[in-house]
Amino acid sequence: MEKIKNRLEVCLSPAIYDKHSDDENLVVIVDVLRASSSICAAIHNGVKSILPVATVEEAREMKQQGYMVASERDGFVLDFADFGNSPFNFTPEIVKGKEIVYSTTNGTRCIHMASHSKAVVIGTFLNISVLADWLIRQNAPVLIFCASWKDRFCLEDTVFAGALADRLLQSGKFETICDAVTASIDLWNLAKTDLHGYINKTAQKGRLASKGLDDCIEYCLTADQTSVIPVFQDGRLIDVLKVNEVMLNL
Amino acid sequence: MEKIKNRLEVCLSPAIYDKHSDDENLVVIVDVLRASSSICAAIHNGVKSILPVATVEEAREMKQQGYMVASERDGFVLDFADFGNSPFNFTPEIVKGKEIVYSTTNGTRCIHMASHSKAVVIGTFLNISVLADWLIRQNAPVLIFCASWKDRFCLEDTVFAGALADRLLQSGKFETICDAVTASIDLWNLAKTDLHGYINKTAQKGRLASKGLDDCIEYCLTADQTSVIPVFQDGRLIDVLKVNEVMLNL
Repeated sequence: MEKIKNRLEVCLSPAIYDKHSDDENLVVIVDVLRASSSICAAIHNGVKSILPVATVEEAREMKQQGYMVASERDGFVLDFADFGNSPFNFTPEIVKGKEIVYSTTNGTRCIHMASHSKAVVIGTFLNISVLADWLIRQNAPVLIFCASWKDRFCLEDTVFAGALADRLLQSGKFETICDAVTASIDLWNLAKTDLHGYINKTAQKGRLASKGLDDCIEYCLTADQTSVIPVFQDGRLIDVLKVNEVMLNL
Repeated sequence: MEKIKNRLEVCLSPAIYDKHSDDENLVVIVDVLRASSSICAAIHNGVKSILPVATVEEAREMKQQGYMVASERDGFVLDFADFGNSPFNFTPEIVKGKEIVYSTTNGTRCIHMASHSKAVVIGTFLNISVLADWLIRQNAPVLIFCASWKDRFCLEDTVFAGALADRLLQSGKFETICDAVTASIDLWNLAKTDLHGYINKTAQKGRLASKGLDDCIEYCLTADQTSVIPVFQDGRLIDVLKVNEVMLNL
């Protein structure tokens, strides 16, 4: 008997999210430069949990409650925050055992937008292999959700979406009629032989370089630096291995 | 003295339009399969003007006022309409000298969304060379606006956007920091050696084929079938050559 394949889609901007939204989706939040890479680095380095908050006001309030806060807008660290959005900030010495409040320009908003879904996980090159294997093992539709830049199309997130979509389709467990899947895989195939060179073409590379924040790009584009899969559960991001799968309802 | 270059952007979905919107823009509406191709064919075949209306209700009302109406939703001709959205409907015998009310699923809405801009023109492979030359001659920023499919990303409109953007950048008169320009040109370069084969991968090809409406695809992908440039002026689409350029404020 032929097995039913699950739907695979890519959403290229939060502005289009409602067209892809489905409570049954496993949603992969992608903000390669830099939020999803930083979240993976932090959890890899032993952070107890990350509390993503969408607004600056919430982040400020949580700081007053005594939380360590990582928060930025447009690449600038907010004045009340302990640090910004580079994955290099989240070293074991600083974050181990801590609960960290996290708010960024694009990525954290998407986590909350997708929180109605079956599961929300964080995807990046750093955890691509373990994430692809995990998604393939679940029996559910997958939506790869590009955080983008202030709702505009964003090339580096799309290229990562293509890399992940390519692995999922090659498993034979998924099918798609989504043009954004087709385009992102084609762009990934163009980019993959010189990923760093290709990402140099992006607007985000220019934005980061103009603020001296591009030192982490090579790290963010390096596959398989960690086996953690951050999952959003009860308002917190924790490693999926620490979640009772019954609670996740998978 | 170095000349100042004009901004070039691509908007991949009406849901993102407000991020690209600027009163100074020349906006190129792209709905390759099939509205922008049909509008070019109609004006090429001598239609006096086309009145794009966004809603079914407006189209129905205009029919009662005696207009000839071309209108469809999701590829189905509306019951009160004279015909639907294939460019083959707009033959000289049927349309010459007529004013036609036109309403489709995606394209006509975008014309109204962009009507605050400096000019709104219709772009398609059928008029790509004359359109590119005209845009290069103006001294204004250009936004290529993909009508997409119900706000979702749409590959055939993006590939056309890349084809047009490539010509504009090669003129040396434009500059861009828009990732959607970069991606659409890369996709165009992938597609152009076998455009028909590439467009076969799109969701819209499947939607049209399922209704037997894909007979016009080859025509819609054929460059330079006409020298008309439909421009939106006083609620009507007419050939740009029939517009007093002072009225257009160019």
